[in-house]
Amino acid sequence: MTTSTHDIRAIEGGVTAARGVTAGATACGIKPSGRPDLALVASDGPASVAGLFTTNRVKAAPVLLCQDRVAAGRARAVVINSGNANACTGDAGARAAERAAAAAGARIGVGAGEVLMLSTGVIGVPLPVERIEAALPALALSPTGGDAAARAIMTTDTRPKTAAVAFEAAGTTVRIGGMAKGSGMIHPDMATMLAVLTTDAALAPDALQRHLVAAAGASFNRIDVDGDMSTNDSVLLLANGASGVTPPDDLFAAALARVCVALAKGIAADGEGATKLLEVRVSGAASVDDANRAARAITRSNLVKTAMYGNDPNWGRIMCAAGYSGADFDPARARLAVQGIPLFAAGVPLPFDAAAASSALRAPEVVVALDLGAGDDGATAWGCDFSPEYVHINADYTT
Amino acid sequence: MTTSTHDIRAIEGGVTAARGVTAGATACGIKPSGRPDLALVASDGPASVAGLFTTNRVKAAPVLLCQDRVAAGRARAVVINSGNANACTGDAGARAAERAAAAAGARIGVGAGEVLMLSTGVIGVPLPVERIEAALPALALSPTGGDAAARAIMTTDTRPKTAAVAFEAAGTTVRIGGMAKGSGMIHPDMATMLAVLTTDAALAPDALQRHLVAAAGASFNRIDVDGDMSTNDSVLLLANGASGVTPPDDLFAAALARVCVALAKGIAADGEGATKLLEVRVSGAASVDDANRAARAITRSNLVKTAMYGNDPNWGRIMCAAGYSGADFDPARARLAVQGIPLFAAGVPLPFDAAAASSALRAPEVVVALDLGAGDDGATAWGCDFSPEYVHINADYTT
Repeated sequence: MTTSTHDIRAIEGGVTAARGVTAGATACGIKPSGRPDLALVASDGPASVAGLFTTNRVKAAPVLLCQDRVAAGRARAVVINSGNANACTGDAGARAAERAAAAAGARIGVGAGEVLMLSTGVIGVPLPVERIEAALPALALSPTGGDAAARAIMTTDTRPKTAAVAFEAAGTTVRIGGMAKGSGMIHPDMATMLAVLTTDAALAPDALQRHLVAAAGASFNRIDVDGDMSTNDSVLLLANGASGVTPPDDLFAAALARVCVALAKGIAADGEGATKLLEVRVSGAASVDDANRAARAITRSNLVKTAMYGNDPNWGRIMCAAGYSGADFDPARARLAVQGIPLFAAGVPLPFDAAAASSALRAPEVVVALDLGAGDDGATAWGCDFSPEYVHINADYTT
Repeated sequence: MTTSTHDIRAIEGGVTAARGVTAGATACGIKPSGRPDLALVASDGPASVAGLFTTNRVKAAPVLLCQDRVAAGRARAVVINSGNANACTGDAGARAAERAAAAAGARIGVGAGEVLMLSTGVIGVPLPVERIEAALPALALSPTGGDAAARAIMTTDTRPKTAAVAFEAAGTTVRIGGMAKGSGMIHPDMATMLAVLTTDAALAPDALQRHLVAAAGASFNRIDVDGDMSTNDSVLLLANGASGVTPPDDLFAAALARVCVALAKGIAADGEGATKLLEVRVSGAASVDDANRAARAITRSNLVKTAMYGNDPNWGRIMCAAGYSGADFDPARARLAVQGIPLFAAGVPLPFDAAAASSALRAPEVVVALDLGAGDDGATAWGCDFSPEYVHINADYTT
C-alpha cells in the first residue's frame, strides 16, 4: 500500500464530514434554558453500525435500546436529546425511547428499528418525549449540520467537541468524523462517553466493532473528569460506505484513533470546572495494563487535581496515586517529571525551583511523565484539574 | 459469662483511658504555624502490639519501620509527628525514623526497638528529625495526656478525634481508648488511617492482631473522604495487660469495634471541607462484599458528595454509583430512601416533595438507605460532603 498514517489529515465538518451524512438540531423544550437539546444524525443510505456502552448495572433506557439495535449491525440514524438522561425511568422510559426513535425514523422515512437513540442529562426524571415528537418533523438536516448537532448534545459542557480526518485509499478520499459530549460523570470503563462517529468507508459490522473497541480503549477509556461512570455512556460508529472504499486496516485504525483521541482530549479539557488539561504519560511499566492503571489513578486523584488547579508542584501526591493504583513497581527505581522538570528519582526528591515549577504549571496543558522503572510498556491518560467551580456546578444540578 | 455488649459504656480519656498508659505532646517546630506537632504515647510496662498499614506501593519510612517492629509483637511506645509524612524520602528518611524512635526510647528508658513511629503531613520533604530529638527529653507524659496527643497529630483536621470505652470482665474494669487523625487522602483499603489504640486488657499479639483486623474492617476501612489512599495509613493497637484480665472474645471485639467506629465516623465527619457526615446503609445485598462495594462507591462519588453539599436530592447519582460499584443487583428490585424519604423503588422514581427533601438534607448527619433487593447481607460506610473548601485546602498545600 502506498499510503501511510502520515497522510491522515485533520478536516472540518465533525460528524457530517463523511459523505452521505447529514445532521440537524433544534430546541424542543427539554432544557428549561431554551437552548438546543435535540440532534439528529442520519446516513443517506444504510450503514454498518458498531457501539460500546456503559458497564454500569443501572443502564439508561436509550442504552438498552441501542444495545439491541447495534447487535443487528445496521442503522440509518441516531437521535439524541440532552437535558434528560432517561435513566431510572422504568418501562415508561423504555417506551419513550422507542417513541423518539420511531419519530426520527418517520422524519427520514425509515423504520424505528433502524434508528438509535442517546440521552444525556438528569437521571430519574420522565422524558417528555412528546416534545421530541413535536419537533422532529420540522428538524432540518444538512451536510454541514455537524457543528449544530455537537452543540445540541451539550449539558454542562462549555464548548462543542468535534473532530474529523481524511485520508486517501484506492485513489479515493475516505473520511471519518465525530462529535462527543461530557464534562461530568466521566470515568468510562470498557464503554465510553456520549459520542457519535461516522465514516464513508465501507466496513462490515464486525470489522467496525473491532476497530471501535481498539480506538476507544486508547482514547475514551483513558479519560477521567470525576471518577463517576455514567448510566448513559455510549459511543456509536456508523459506516455508510459512501466512499466506495474499504481502507487498509492499519490506516483506518490510525485515522479512527486520531478522531477518538481528539474528542477524548476535548472532553477532558472541558471537564466540569476545569482550567487545564492534564496529560499523564506512564512509561517503563511491566505491562500496558499496569501503565494504564497508574496513568488513570493519577488523572483520577482529587488531590493531584486540586494541586494542579493551585499550580502546586506537590509531586508526592502523584507518586502516592501511582502507589495505590495496583501497578507493580519499586518506588526506588521510578522517575517523575512534571512539565519537563525532574522531581523524583531513585527513591528521593530532586532539588527543584518551586517558584519556577509552579509557574510552569500555569499552562492550558500540563504533562506528567512517570517512568515506573519496571519494564518497557507505556500508556497515556488524560484528565483535568479540579476547581471550586466543579463543586458549584454539581451542588445544585437539580434544585 | 454475665456481661453483655450492652454493658460497654463510653468513657473519657482517649488514648490514655487505659490503665498504665500515658501521653504527651509539644510543638517541636516541624509545622511552620508553631502548632503542636509531636506526640508520644507510652505504656508503663511491656505491651502486646498489633498493626495494620497502607497497601500503597509507596510506603512512608515510618510505615516500613512499624511493619518490622509490629512483627515482633511487643512495643512500649509510639512517637508521632505531624507536618511531615517522611514519605518518598529514601534512605535518609529511614534513618530519620530510626533516630526519632531511638530518642523516644531514651526518653522513657527503653531500647529503640520497642518504639514505633508514625508520621503525617506533606510527602517528599526531608524530616527535620533533629527537632524531634531536641524536643523529646523535655516532653511531659501524663495519664490525662490523651487530648493533647490527639491535638498534636492533627494536620488539616479541624478537631481532635478520641474515643474510649469501659466494660466489666472477671470483676474488673477493662478499658480501650484511642485517637485518630485524618481529613484528606482518606480511602483506606485493608489498612487504615493514622490511629493509635490502647487497652489494659491482657491479650497475646496474635489475638490482638485478629481483633484489630476485624474491627478495622468494619470501621476505618469503611470511610472515604477523597478516594486517595495515603502512603502513611497506619493503625496501632497496644495491650499492656494492666487490668490483669483477658476478656471474653465477643465482648472485647464489640468494645474495640465501638471505639474504632467512633473514631472512623469522626474522621469522615471532619473530612477536608466537610459540612456533614454521610452514612450509607446498604441492605438486601447478595454478599457483604457486594454491600460494602455499593456503600463505598456511594460515599466515594464526587457527584453524590457535591449534591449532599448543595442539599440537592439528586438521588439518580446514588443509584448510578451503586450501579458501577460492581455489586450484583437488578435496579428494578432496588429501593432507595434518603433521610427516611423513599425516592426510588421497582425501577421508577417515587413522587416526593423536593423542597422538603432538600430541607431534610440540611442536617449534620445524612443517612442514605439502599436496599439492593438481591439478598440478605448488608454493610454501612461513612463519608462526607464535598465543598469548595476542599479544593481551597488542597490547591495550595505546599506552596
